[in-house]
Amino acid sequence: MKSEKVRGMKDFYPEDERVQKYIFSAWRKIAEKYGYSEVDFPILENVDIYKKSGEEVPEQMYILKDKKGRKLALRPETTPTIARMLGFRKDLSKPVKWYSVSRCLRYERMQKGRGREFFQYNVDCLGLDNMLADAEVITVGVKVMQELGLGRKDFCVKINNRKIIQNFLERLGVKKIDEVLRLIDKKEKIGAAEFRSGLKKLCKIDVVELENFLKIKNLRDLDDYDLKGIDELRELFDYLKNFSVDGFCEIDFSITRGFDYYTGTVFEIFDKSKEFRSVAGGGRYDDLARGFPGVGFGMGDSVLKLVLEDKKKIPDLKKEVDYFVAVTEKELVGKAIDISEKLRKENNVEIDLSFRSLSKQLKYADEINAKKTVIVGPKELKKKKVVVRDMFSGREKKVKSSKLK
Amino acid sequence: MKSEKVRGMKDFYPEDERVQKYIFSAWRKIAEKYGYSEVDFPILENVDIYKKSGEEVPEQMYILKDKKGRKLALRPETTPTIARMLGFRKDLSKPVKWYSVSRCLRYERMQKGRGREFFQYNVDCLGLDNMLADAEVITVGVKVMQELGLGRKDFCVKINNRKIIQNFLERLGVKKIDEVLRLIDKKEKIGAAEFRSGLKKLCKIDVVELENFLKIKNLRDLDDYDLKGIDELRELFDYLKNFSVDGFCEIDFSITRGFDYYTGTVFEIFDKSKEFRSVAGGGRYDDLARGFPGVGFGMGDSVLKLVLEDKKKIPDLKKEVDYFVAVTEKELVGKAIDISEKLRKENNVEIDLSFRSLSKQLKYADEINAKKTVIVGPKELKKKKVVVRDMFSGREKKVKSSKLK
Repeated sequence: MKSEKVRGMKDFYPEDERVQKYIFSAWRKIAEKYGYSEVDFPILENVDIYKKSGEEVPEQMYILKDKKGRKLALRPETTPTIARMLGFRKDLSKPVKWYSVSRCLRYERMQKGRGREFFQYNVDCLGLDNMLADAEVITVGVKVMQELGLGRKDFCVKINNRKIIQNFLERLGVKKIDEVLRLIDKKEKIGAAEFRSGLKKLCKIDVVELENFLKIKNLRDLDDYDLKGIDELRELFDYLKNFSVDGFCEIDFSITRGFDYYTGTVFEIFDKSKEFRSVAGGGRYDDLARGFPGVGFGMGDSVLKLVLEDKKKIPDLKKEVDYFVAVTEKELVGKAIDISEKLRKENNVEIDLSFRSLSKQLKYADEINAKKTVIVGPKELKKKKVVVRDMFSGREKKVKSSKLK
Repeated sequence: MKSEKVRGMKDFYPEDERVQKYIFSAWRKIAEKYGYSEVDFPILENVDIYKKSGEEVPEQMYILKDKKGRKLALRPETTPTIARMLGFRKDLSKPVKWYSVSRCLRYERMQKGRGREFFQYNVDCLGLDNMLADAEVITVGVKVMQELGLGRKDFCVKINNRKIIQNFLERLGVKKIDEVLRLIDKKEKIGAAEFRSGLKKLCKIDVVELENFLKIKNLRDLDDYDLKGIDELRELFDYLKNFSVDGFCEIDFSITRGFDYYTGTVFEIFDKSKEFRSVAGGGRYDDLARGFPGVGFGMGDSVLKLVLEDKKKIPDLKKEVDYFVAVTEKELVGKAIDISEKLRKENNVEIDLSFRSLSKQLKYADEINAKKTVIVGPKELKKKKVVVRDMFSGREKKVKSSKLK
């Protein structure tokens, strides 16, 4: 049988899966360090929960019909699921601090580093509507990047507060706020000309005034403005300073996020070379789950891996076992199994299953990076001994098999 | 928004996910102990790869059509995927020892402990056609059960070799071997009467002769038979003895497995009370992946959890953090963050994000099972100290904040 895999899907051979595990383990470690608990959820959801997921996501869903004709989606993201789960639990004490590492699917145009199936890390703090929660969530994002070996020269967090840009647009007299926000979100991608012409179609405002506002990088430059959300942004930056991550963070009013459910803080993590799409994105969503104002972010594995590769930050991850047990005669396999089982109390041990020549066994032991090889042979066994070979130095010594551990 | 979840799907709240992680971690630990490497694969596969998955599985697949009209299945099992992956890799050195922990979906009738989405542990050894590989794979299954606290009074492995039962049926003159094997597989479930009538429809053989053969429990009782596969079964049991797991294993010729791709050894793990369906099932499949004769098994989380609950073997898994950092005045939050960040170097730390009263903070610290609470208050801070409260004993002491770790 030689079947093709489905386009946009990825197989994770051991060498690929080791990279996944390396990333997942950093994700989990940092979330746990901040007191977040892991959750998981179905891969199939009713399509209606993604109504607030903006323009793009609902169009990119894999949809199937169940036997009763109901439309089900393969989850394209996880925030709406979290809102759904909270709706059924009135007993949870606040804050609800959850994280997840989950497979998501989006039927999008194929691009470098973007398959149609990816893994998303989500970190959410629910039940609180203060900026301290926002600061903690952003800090978790920064700490994950640091845990993976990235520093200030590699990445930054661009932060906005939707209230500010919305209020600014309102003051300018813009009616189609959501549409303009989406256009601003795409500004970098589509370029100045297309941005301007798009804007013209949506409203009659002074483009230069908007463009100047979008260039603001400092809290100080906001002193001249009296807009909703500025106080929140100031408070957020105070806390970010307390967390010592303010050096990674900058203001960027062009960050609006494509999802309609964000209500305050929005942010994205970018690599500084700007070669890649955002590594992570999130924000505050106070109206998605009733009684649970929330803040959170999602980080996909695809762009993250591109950035880590680009910065040469993926370590050389190889299969490793503590012991390989080689056997020189088929009759001695029983004894070899016995020895391997004893060694497994404390070690990861592979035993030769192939009945091949000793030199081939040693070659294989090298391939799997065995630290030591135990050679079970008849001469030594008579003295209740085995040969233990250090695979790095090549040195061998005879050891009583009862002394192995 | 209050949406329903899709029927047959499950949400894993933190308390549920802790059970999943407990099981997954046992699965991974034992596989690694035997030198297996983790792999992962897409959740969507072309439907044609499941042609050999027997009668039931293909009927239970969730199927969707992509934008080009191709039929894709949400994976109902993973063995065919492994065969597919091997087809693209001629460079792999043998044996290929892989395991996976993967979400699978089957659209089946809802039953206790059986949702439509489940997690499957797969352990496969490929590229070898000897019984030592079969014995190792079965041993991994036994060791996982032991790792989860189950012993000889709790479970057993029922083992058959398809060659034996096939050859036996051939000798009796049965033509529709596959159909009869499937009927034998269902024997326990459908009862003796239905089995006999079903058999009558398929062939004209002496029912009693077959029933007696199916009752054989000892290798010694096979001395009178000259059938293909008996030698393999004997060899397998010799190795199982070497692995010291023969005490868990028994012969059962009625175990045939519902999948068509098995060619030799087949086995299932059952709880001894026989209350539940099989916990795991697997066998040898020499023709599924060209050049890679294989043996492996799958173990689902659903039945396993029922068995573990029944035997009271699921430990009380609670959220735990090393430190909770409480703060008595909003102005001190900055200092509290500072302390929490220092503690996070070595610990998992949650800080109060809610600006609530100290008594409420301590109540919450109890809820999340904080081992210790650091109370940041103005009086102690003046002396550069904080109060550290042991949450088990309730004892408090003042500690220099620079000495915290």
